[in-house]
This record gives sequence, structure tokens and C-alpha cells, in this order.
Amino acid sequence: MRETPALSAEQQAREEDLIQRVLRSFDECTNPRLKELMISAVENLHAFVREVRLTEEEWLQGIEFLTAVGHMTNDQRQEFILLSDTLGVSMQTIAINNEAYDDATEATVFGPFFVEGSPALESGGDIAFGAAGEPCWVEGTVTDAQGRPVAGAGIEVWEADAAGFYDVQYGDQRTAARGQLSSQADGSYRFWAVTPVPYPIPDDGPVGKMLEATGRSPMRAAHLHFLVRAPHCRTLVTHIFVEGDELLDSDTVFGVKNSLVKKFERQPVGTPTPDGRVVEGTWSKVTFDIVLAPAGA
Amino acid sequence: MRETPALSAEQQAREEDLIQRVLRSFDECTNPRLKELMISAVENLHAFVREVRLTEEEWLQGIEFLTAVGHMTNDQRQEFILLSDTLGVSMQTIAINNEAYDDATEATVFGPFFVEGSPALESGGDIAFGAAGEPCWVEGTVTDAQGRPVAGAGIEVWEADAAGFYDVQYGDQRTAARGQLSSQADGSYRFWAVTPVPYPIPDDGPVGKMLEATGRSPMRAAHLHFLVRAPHCRTLVTHIFVEGDELLDSDTVFGVKNSLVKKFERQPVGTPTPDGRVVEGTWSKVTFDIVLAPAGA
Repeated sequence: MRETPALSAEQQAREEDLIQRVLRSFDECTNPRLKELMISAVENLHAFVREVRLTEEEWLQGIEFLTAVGHMTNDQRQEFILLSDTLGVSMQTIAINNEAYDDATEATVFGPFFVEGSPALESGGDIAFGAAGEPCWVEGTVTDAQGRPVAGAGIEVWEADAAGFYDVQYGDQRTAARGQLSSQADGSYRFWAVTPVPYPIPDDGPVGKMLEATGRSPMRAAHLHFLVRAPHCRTLVTHIFVEGDELLDSDTVFGVKNSLVKKFERQPVGTPTPDGRVVEGTWSKVTFDIVLAPAGA
Repeated sequence: MRETPALSAEQQAREEDLIQRVLRSFDECTNPRLKELMISAVENLHAFVREVRLTEEEWLQGIEFLTAVGHMTNDQRQEFILLSDTLGVSMQTIAINNEAYDDATEATVFGPFFVEGSPALESGGDIAFGAAGEPCWVEGTVTDAQGRPVAGAGIEVWEADAAGFYDVQYGDQRTAARGQLSSQADGSYRFWAVTPVPYPIPDDGPVGKMLEATGRSPMRAAHLHFLVRAPHCRTLVTHIFVEGDELLDSDTVFGVKNSLVKKFERQPVGTPTPDGRVVEGTWSKVTFDIVLAPAGA
């Protein structure tokens, strides 16, 4: 780790005494969980300030940065979530609340683009609803952790179009590139989507400035969102990513897990489709087998 | 410390791998200090999230709290500074940037009520300018760390009135309870002020809600602000506090240092004043000897 500058015993005592006084200020807190959160927040905040020997100018820059994040945030834009996402805090929270369970499919960030009540599809239906993009056949099975098929699992899927925009960003109330369907009696599911492409997170605010100042890209690796729900199973919020995408190692919200990177096989023009649909150009095909952990795991 | 819940090796590996990925995202940062700050911020943020096993609901409450702090902040009100103050972060930053140096007077928080260009006083003048309060005679010396008198040190002082308000809170542009003077050839200084009283920080926003939810008081211990500047000396920003004030142990911004608690001796009605001023009721008297560290210490 970093070297701690040599401090006099008196200076160390002053800094540690201050922390103890702050911690004691929560002695009368009657909500034990809130107290636990405040104590850990104080300990880690002070650890940061002491570790970096924060200057007064840097402290003020930090105050100004948080103020700008607050002022960027409104009903349409949540810059604090973007900050949490780009520091990996959102993904860590998800990791903690979706603990590893045997071969259960890993969770990843929910993102801001889910919409309740997306169109219901028959098995094999198309979620595109006019969204531009290369057609993509998605198929797989839903099983529990014992490998038993899960029939009737609710599967909601959503994604950006070929230009990198979700329907909610079109600004015209259209629904596109989202839908929901159920797994069949044997646990299988299948639908048409569009091949995912990378896109930037909104980077015209203070979080975008932070990414630029630190030499980071605002790009998210290409992905297709899944929300999978079934009785007695832990709800799964995840994405699948595109094998070979050069952004897999630099996804700006750290959503990529190796287990979620899938082969999207591009099919040459003229290749027959699984359901007889006639596609003019190329299309792609991906298999995603979903394993649900038991509820409460 | 707290017990860490038992985690599987796989779960631990996932959480630690995520942190490493976030840290590596700053590999291309060309500003070494910014990189150091980001790395420490990420390490301590993730330590907090993992230590408390933050739930997704708590994460969202945290986002909503920061959003409320951001929306409370405007040109007149800095709720992020209030948050920093009430978590002891401001005071820790001051402690770090004003390292212990022999017997040099300790620094404390600057606060939001300093105003440039306060009225200049002769030695023995009165800073009250009509502010309500019990008259208070303040005297002392300014010396350097070798005990040599510092002549001509610039001393600026400011405080709240007997109702707990600073002049800038009156809303009518009046100047009161602030002023500046210089130390004499022998390093001595003296002036009239008003005896400080406790007052609450602005507690009608999210920080006030946090204090209430955690069983904390919004009150600041009674104090008188000093800003002392002299050539070749480290600038001192500090307060003096009132011995016997029952808020000394619970000052909500943790500004109190034992070395800054002074005896404000109340003088019975009719006690002659040091300069012959006629005071109707009681008055108080305090001595504050100031020791300045060398510049750059």
C-alpha cells in the first residue's frame, strides 16, 4: 500500500482522538443498524482523509465535486448513481446481496433503463419492435441449482439499439428493444433481439469530467439485460456480454463477469434461421443457460 | 471491531476481484496525486460497503440522502460542508494540515461566518457594534514557538450574538460582533467582545435529519473565532471555548480541543473594568495566549 508519512506521536494521538470523539457521538443512537452504518462510514471516511493526507484545497474540491453531482441530479438524471456505478460501488453492493451459490448465474448492475410492463411475447417472439440493429437469436434454458428445469419463469429483457440508445432515450414514448416472456415446460426459452453494441454512459456531467480527468472511458461493453423471476428462486438481475468485445476489460461500471460473456455467433448472409424467419443480412445467435439460486440463498 | 460474516472463498474472491478491477481502471490516470486520491477513495468506499454488508435498499437510501444534501445546497447554504463538519471530516482535514508543533496553539474549524474586511479596531476597542450580549474583555499575547513576542500580528475575531446569530444571519447587511486589530510591540492584545453562547447549526435539512435519527444534538459549544496572521508564522484559524459549557463534549462539529477551553471569569455587577469602561451588569474576562508555529511547519 502507500507509505504513511512519519507523524509525531502527538499528531497521531490528536487524529485518533478526534475519530474516537466522532464515534462516541453516536452512542445515543437507538437504531443499531444505523449506528453500525454511521460508525463504519466515519471510520472509512477518516481512514481516507488520513491516508492521503488530504489538503484543505483538495477537501474543498471534493465539496465542490459533490455539489456539482447534486446539482446535476434531477428526475431524469441520477448523477450519484452514475458516480456509484463508475466507482464500482453499485456492482459491489450487488455482489454482496447476490452471494455466490454453486453454479447459479451471476448478477450484475440493474442500470437505469428498465421499464415495468414491457410487451409480452410468445416464445420465439421479437423484442425489437422496430429498434435498429442486426437480428440476434437468443435461446437457453432456465434451471434451478439442482439442474431441474424451471417452467414458467418470467424473463424480462431490454437493450440499446444499434445507435446505443434505449427507447426511453428516444423522447417519443415509443417502446422498442424490450419485452417479456416465460420459460417453457422444459425450462427452455427463445426470442429475437438485436445484437448488442457498446455505448457511453451520460458523460456530460461531473462524473464524465472525473472519468476524463482520470483517463477512463465512459463506454459500457455491449450487453443484453435480463431480469428472471420464478417462485422459490432468488430473483436474478443480470446481463450477457459479447465475447470479443474489446471493452470487456474496461466496462465503465464494472458490470462484466467472465461467466456472463457469451459467444454471439455471427451467421453469414443467407444462413437459415432457427424459426424460418427471413433475414436480409447477417444475424447472430447466442445461447444463455440460466441457473437460479434458491430464494433466500 | 465488528465481526465479518463468514463468506465463502468464492464470494470473497468475487468481491476482491471487483475492487482490483476498479483500481486498475485508474492505470492510465496521468495525474499521480489524483490517482492516489481515487485509489484510496475506492478502497475505503468498498471497505465500508463490504464491512457493513450494505443492502440494496440501504444503498438506495444513501443515494437519496446524498441527493437531498445536493438539492439543499445553494449559494447561501452548503449542506455538504455541514455533512463534512458533523462527521468530523472537516476537523480531521484541519488537524492534518496544521500538524502539532511544540506548544503552538491548536487550530479548529473555520466555519461559514467569516467575512473579509471586518472593522479595524484600536487596541482595547469593542467588536460588538451593537450585538446583544454580556460584555467580555479578551486579552493575551501573541508569541512565536520560541516564546518571543510577535508584534503587529493581524488578529481577526468574530462570533455569534447572545441570541446565537452572526451578523450575516441578520439579513440587513449590518456588521456586528466582528473586527480586527494588531498585537502591540510586546505581543499583547486586548479588546471587548460579548460572552459567547451556544447555538445550533442549521438543522432544517438532511444533515439535521441525520443528527436527529442518530440521537445527536445540532448544538455547537459556545466559542469566539480567531484568525491570526504574522510574517514567517503559520496562519492560525481557531476558536476559544468556554470552560464549564456543558456542550464541550458534544460540540456537533468536533471543534473543541482541551487546549482551547478557557476560563471566562464572570465579574459581579459593579466590578471595575480593565479600561475604566462603565458596564451596567455583569461582564466576563478571558485570557488567551496565542503561540504561532513557524510558517511551513
